[in-house]
Amino acid sequence: MFDPITLKLNADPLILSALKEDITSDDVSTNSVMPEPKPGTVDLIAKEDGILCGMQVFQRTFELLDPETEVIWEKRDGDPIEKGMRLAVVNGDIRVLLSGERTALNYLQRMSGIATYTHKMAEKLKGSGIKLLDTRKTTPNNRIFEKYAVTVGGGSNHRYNLSDGVMLKDNHIGAAGGIRQAVAAAREYAPFVRKIEVETESLAMVQEALDAGADIIMLDNMSHDMMAEAVKLIAGRAEIEASGNVSMDNLESFRDLGIDYVSSGALTHSAPILDLSLKHLHPVD
Amino acid sequence: MFDPITLKLNADPLILSALKEDITSDDVSTNSVMPEPKPGTVDLIAKEDGILCGMQVFQRTFELLDPETEVIWEKRDGDPIEKGMRLAVVNGDIRVLLSGERTALNYLQRMSGIATYTHKMAEKLKGSGIKLLDTRKTTPNNRIFEKYAVTVGGGSNHRYNLSDGVMLKDNHIGAAGGIRQAVAAAREYAPFVRKIEVETESLAMVQEALDAGADIIMLDNMSHDMMAEAVKLIAGRAEIEASGNVSMDNLESFRDLGIDYVSSGALTHSAPILDLSLKHLHPVD
Amino acid sequence: MFDPITLKLNADPLILSALKEDITSDDVSTNSVMPEPKPGTVDLIAKEDGILCGMQVFQRTFELLDPETEVIWEKRDGDPIEKGMRLAVVNGDIRVLLSGERTALNYLQRMSGIATYTHKMAEKLKGSGIKLLDTRKTTPNNRIFEKYAVTVGGGSNHRYNLSDGVMLKDNHIGAAGGIRQAVAAAREYAPFVRKIEVETESLAMVQEALDAGADIIMLDNMSHDMMAEAVKLIAGRAEIEASGNVSMDNLESFRDLGIDYVSSGALTHSAPILDLSLKHLHPVD
Amino acid sequence: MFDPITLKLNADPLILSALKEDITSDDVSTNSVMPEPKPGTVDLIAKEDGILCGMQVFQRTFELLDPETEVIWEKRDGDPIEKGMRLAVVNGDIRVLLSGERTALNYLQRMSGIATYTHKMAEKLKGSGIKLLDTRKTTPNNRIFEKYAVTVGGGSNHRYNLSDGVMLKDNHIGAAGGIRQAVAAAREYAPFVRKIEVETESLAMVQEALDAGADIIMLDNMSHDMMAEAVKLIAGRAEIEASGNVSMDNLESFRDLGIDYVSSGALTHSAPILDLSLKHLHPVD
Amino acid sequence: MFDPITLKLNADPLILSALKEDITSDDVSTNSVMPEPKPGTVDLIAKEDGILCGMQVFQRTFELLDPETEVIWEKRDGDPIEKGMRLAVVNGDIRVLLSGERTALNYLQRMSGIATYTHKMAEKLKGSGIKLLDTRKTTPNNRIFEKYAVTVGGGSNHRYNLSDGVMLKDNHIGAAGGIRQAVAAAREYAPFVRKIEVETESLAMVQEALDAGADIIMLDNMSHDMMAEAVKLIAGRAEIEASGNVSMDNLESFRDLGIDYVSSGALTHSAPILDLSLKHLHPVD
Amino acid sequence: MFDPITLKLNADPLILSALKEDITSDDVSTNSVMPEPKPGTVDLIAKEDGILCGMQVFQRTFELLDPETEVIWEKRDGDPIEKGMRLAVVNGDIRVLLSGERTALNYLQRMSGIATYTHKMAEKLKGSGIKLLDTRKTTPNNRIFEKYAVTVGGGSNHRYNLSDGVMLKDNHIGAAGGIRQAVAAAREYAPFVRKIEVETESLAMVQEALDAGADIIMLDNMSHDMMAEAVKLIAGRAEIEASGNVSMDNLESFRDLGIDYVSSGALTHSAPILDLSLKHLHPVD
Repeated sequence: MFDPITLKLNADPLILSALKEDITSDDVSTNSVMPEPKPGTVDLIAKEDGILCGMQVFQRTFELLDPETEVIWEKRDGDPIEKGMRLAVVNGDIRVLLSGERTALNYLQRMSGIATYTHKMAEKLKGSGIKLLDTRKTTPNNRIFEKYAVTVGGGSNHRYNLSDGVMLKDNHIGAAGGIRQAVAAAREYAPFVRKIEVETESLAMVQEALDAGADIIMLDNMSHDMMAEAVKLIAGRAEIEASGNVSMDNLESFRDLGIDYVSSGALTHSAPILDLSLKHLHPVD
Repeated sequence: MFDPITLKLNADPLILSALKEDITSDDVSTNSVMPEPKPGTVDLIAKEDGILCGMQVFQRTFELLDPETEVIWEKRDGDPIEKGMRLAVVNGDIRVLLSGERTALNYLQRMSGIATYTHKMAEKLKGSGIKLLDTRKTTPNNRIFEKYAVTVGGGSNHRYNLSDGVMLKDNHIGAAGGIRQAVAAAREYAPFVRKIEVETESLAMVQEALDAGADIIMLDNMSHDMMAEAVKLIAGRAEIEASGNVSMDNLESFRDLGIDYVSSGALTHSAPILDLSLKHLHPVD
Repeated sequence: MFDPITLKLNADPLILSALKEDITSDDVSTNSVMPEPKPGTVDLIAKEDGILCGMQVFQRTFELLDPETEVIWEKRDGDPIEKGMRLAVVNGDIRVLLSGERTALNYLQRMSGIATYTHKMAEKLKGSGIKLLDTRKTTPNNRIFEKYAVTVGGGSNHRYNLSDGVMLKDNHIGAAGGIRQAVAAAREYAPFVRKIEVETESLAMVQEALDAGADIIMLDNMSHDMMAEAVKLIAGRAEIEASGNVSMDNLESFRDLGIDYVSSGALTHSAPILDLSLKHLHPVD
Repeated sequence: MFDPITLKLNADPLILSALKEDITSDDVSTNSVMPEPKPGTVDLIAKEDGILCGMQVFQRTFELLDPETEVIWEKRDGDPIEKGMRLAVVNGDIRVLLSGERTALNYLQRMSGIATYTHKMAEKLKGSGIKLLDTRKTTPNNRIFEKYAVTVGGGSNHRYNLSDGVMLKDNHIGAAGGIRQAVAAAREYAPFVRKIEVETESLAMVQEALDAGADIIMLDNMSHDMMAEAVKLIAGRAEIEASGNVSMDNLESFRDLGIDYVSSGALTHSAPILDLSLKHLHPVD
Repeated sequence: MFDPITLKLNADPLILSALKEDITSDDVSTNSVMPEPKPGTVDLIAKEDGILCGMQVFQRTFELLDPETEVIWEKRDGDPIEKGMRLAVVNGDIRVLLSGERTALNYLQRMSGIATYTHKMAEKLKGSGIKLLDTRKTTPNNRIFEKYAVTVGGGSNHRYNLSDGVMLKDNHIGAAGGIRQAVAAAREYAPFVRKIEVETESLAMVQEALDAGADIIMLDNMSHDMMAEAVKLIAGRAEIEASGNVSMDNLESFRDLGIDYVSSGALTHSAPILDLSLKHLHPVD
Repeated sequence: MFDPITLKLNADPLILSALKEDITSDDVSTNSVMPEPKPGTVDLIAKEDGILCGMQVFQRTFELLDPETEVIWEKRDGDPIEKGMRLAVVNGDIRVLLSGERTALNYLQRMSGIATYTHKMAEKLKGSGIKLLDTRKTTPNNRIFEKYAVTVGGGSNHRYNLSDGVMLKDNHIGAAGGIRQAVAAAREYAPFVRKIEVETESLAMVQEALDAGADIIMLDNMSHDMMAEAVKLIAGRAEIEASGNVSMDNLESFRDLGIDYVSSGALTHSAPILDLSLKHLHPVD
């Protein structure tokens, strides 16, 4: 469930901004033919199989236009849905249903698309004990929605942003003068509740990260064999994340590695939408 | 070229908001190891073939962090690019290069992804005289970037939003009591600089729309044969847009129909990103 | 009726900003003498004859201070009103009535002033089939209210802004290298739902605009005779807007020209307010 | 001179908002024909006689679109100008000149209109020692511009808003239980740097206000004779403001009353604009 | 009572911003363990003796997260409270109680701290007829809360900000060429409802200020003897404010001076918080 | 050094808002006597001994009013300063120096006050290997400034907010059904880069937290003896934070406990300001 506090504080301003993107003065088509309020109802229908995600965001879009709008859900976030199913009924002023339709669907389709894609990916790791992580490769001004969709699809969240997680890359290491120094500097500087992750590209770097006391070691773009070596080297002394060139096709090859996490940018940057639509809009008395 | 006035008025607030999404307090990793400014340089490299799009947005992201950042472009929006090519060099404070990297790439990869996908679609209509249109199925708070990317890829823009175009659908027609009444109401209500488009699902509706004096008639989800009939019926008295279930695979089948436009939501809702990255970051003296 | 979606999305932020302009810390006079809520009522009275316009905006101003405020309307937007008439009763916390009074009236008086002035102008075209248009010469940050007031007074809206209508002026034409090129460029660039209007100052330009396929031709600052010539030349092949030096005094002279539209900046830039006031405020039990 | 700090803190957000009102996505006409920057110049010309006001606001409008824009002023705020005079030359990217023109003029024409109207009113009081005051009957979200224009025209400012001046009206007095109590409450509550003004409608109220120690007494809607009596009664023990039904026609009748101030809402709510325009736009090399 | 209009217009945006400072994505601790709403209750307990202040702000913090939250107050603003007392009960979704706790307390503790400190200071002037004033030395973005707390503690407010009070200091006087000229300039420029205060550092300056007709004379950092002289000199012809080095320890020494006001920055810049906490949170059925 | 990216993204909006709090229309005193720009200079002087903190924020306040303002620093953040020392010279338009003075000092005094107080506290732990931590008991809308000031004073930052650190308290534990369940839930839910801290009030809870695998254990309000027991029990298997009733007076008693961190809300909620002022303002040629 998308947390209502987050919805109010952090999602509402974005949803409102999206609505204003679509209605800069007024909805001329609707206002041409419907000058007065008129109660109506419309069905939310699945046009593809997948995982539903974003029900509160969809509903909130209509409520921000008119708090009287009512959405009766027949499916919930995380539920598998099938082509043709009715997912919800939306009741309210027809003008609100028409003016909010596109923005509400734009959110719901994208969030459901990510949940669906993540679910397919996560299935490939099922039973392996490995968690599937997202990245910061999200759509600008949509991270809060996309990271949530990943969890609904069965994935887990990596750090939310640059402020709440420490990840020391190549250039941080270079600037500090070595992994040891970089980890020490981060331990000194960063709020103490953060773990420190180091990105490594070779076994030598893995060894250095271990020696420096990194909490998490990322194996970046390594071959399967090198990853296997790295896991042996680490021997449980740090958590392990594999990253780089992870795809639907090769994900299963990570199952036997003994790592803790696999991360994939594709979850948020390349998932196609899930096709949904509003159908059978009609007035009610 | 992304218009600098639009960039300033309408894109800057979104880019700033995206940066704040990624840096809610500070970039802890970078600040741990680089407490002081240090000039550096980094290369923007293509990791796939495609069409470049979003150079001003990419550049602006860094400039909003530090106006001193300099981007030297070797390719421009609309240029075809190939895997491995260097597209630009970014010079500035290394801390700025590190903190802005993800947000700048998130924009550039998505915009280039849309331009690349649109280009492939548009190629299929080449020489037919038919224009490829986008829709309002854009990512919330990214329309201004995505609609631009469509034009860079060789597509054209349908209406920008609900306020600047009249499209009379099923429910508008129902509310008005018929196509004739709906068109008349729109002509009366809507600012006179807008054309009036009517969405039709049958030949009868096409005839009605014609009789009502619609400027544009949309053939929605019709079979190829029905569209051919509709075109004959319209006989040049209105512009014609075909829509619904348009895909990379079936796009060529529209070439011979004698229509003016084909519209496709996939351009903006399902284009995968184009993989690009910043490489070879190093300090300079 | 001012559309409630537009009111919420686009008017609310402006009304709130206007209220904050008037109350930067607190209403010191009211808070001095009324430290606690006290229910009261006040009458909205016309002090001049005219056309009422802006009832939702007036009401919303009070509701934004306190959603419990109730306004009982006795007249509605578009109704002719007479000096001394009671137009509405406002019930609520007296402190809200006092603190919101000025801002609510500032909106209502201006909107009613424009509706009244437009109505007088529109009467002069009555029966001629010519529509009276507004312009973009509106008060900054008040366009949404002023354009609505024009329609309530019996006028029609020209384009809302630079983004939703194409108007090719002198300088656009010069930059393009001629009317033909400018129209072609606009047809290529602009979202296809827009008509293309060309501003002309001579019969030669009218001819060029016709040849270029302009949808609307504006006759700018032409003499009556020249306009008559232009109309003959155009002969129904484009819509015709007359503009420039249109005033209450000369408006009737346009009636016989056979044009479609007359536009006047005075509707929004020089209409005096309609005098209205809140009277008989008193506590209720 | 419009104070640059106020311009930056309090006017810039309003000017930006006005520009976004006019450009919600992009300036389609200009972008159609001018895809690339092109230096140009344009003249600001007076089309009527009056008083110039708003030069910094006009200039700032262009600078907010492009800081490179240069305005060379030949007249300054407060200068009398005559029909046909050139007031300034604006140099910059032609696209910026075209896109900013309307918003810049909307401000300048209104501010000059108010300065011109105020000047005419103030002339009628010249030599009498009476100051002409504005009111809070300003256009929403334009107070900062309109109050400044009043001073440029030779008027003075009454309180800026409900937070920075105490004015005890009928209802405040009623709520407090009498003028004495209201003045005492205000003196207790309001920051001590404010004078306390009482609105009176009869000689009895004037006497009470005097007894209560009001700093300023407003004579509201009184006849000439009653005002003369009131002045005699007050005998210099409080400042005196006359208000209500003040117009261009009757203003001179206040000259001999021995009052300190006359206030008029018409200065800001009913001044027609001063006609100004940008002419002779052309490219430069 | 914190005025509800001010709360809505001017405090709400600040409270919301404070909540977003504490919840940039979501409350991870709470969401980990409480995925669904659960009604609960918690007590607000005093951990020190003092004066309660900020009840509406505390309550509003929770309401902005969830309007259903209910606060039942047992003490009110201005009430003396004692260590161990229950001040209020807060009922609502436990997740809201947990997520809003810190921000609500941060406001309430600071406001109560200022009220408590002011109360102690004001007690030292009790019966002397001298009012204790605050200054503009408030915490950025907290002035509206801190100035209110001063009044709850028994102090009075000096000007709210630079826009609503005239205070002529050294440098204003220097720029104007003398006190006489500075007062004259202020009388000419400033909205007429403002009193004019002059800051003086010597008896000569006091004399000049008197001659110039200052409404209020501030004695800045003068010795007790010099202040006594100044009061004699002024002899009731202006209000008198003493300022500079006012502390809890020396405040009583001002009692016999015959001045009207003493101002102290410490009220807002150095008052320690009053310790309060939420205790006994538990679910209810 | 306060990071310039954070300054721009996250501090600028707050500083601007603070300036608008102080200048809602204009600075009437300054504008009365200085209608035109005039270059000047002023010294920043210490009036007490302490630690300087906030130089970039102080400077930025003036730059936001006028980017031409120049600050020449003689001391830097973290430097010990003494009463009477000149810390910086500020050069710019005198009007900017006067209008920005209060806001700039309000920030600098508070930040320096916190750095000074933290420094005194941190000295008491010197050599013990224990880090002094702040809390979330910061002033609303000032956390970014206050947390930075703590580090300048020699303290370290605890979590920034509810989104970037997991702290399981009483109620989280209760809701989860026990410490084990709460830690497991947090490990499942929270982004994996966060450590998990558990607040404990007894040795039994410490043992449970240890068993549950908590990364950090907070000893809340325990006696010295109980803390000693707890440390023994934990035996290096988790990091240890002591919290509750930490004061300047008892801080040294924590030195010998073998804990890792002591946290204190007083650092940010009760540090008095450090007195600083601008002196010797005078025009320059």
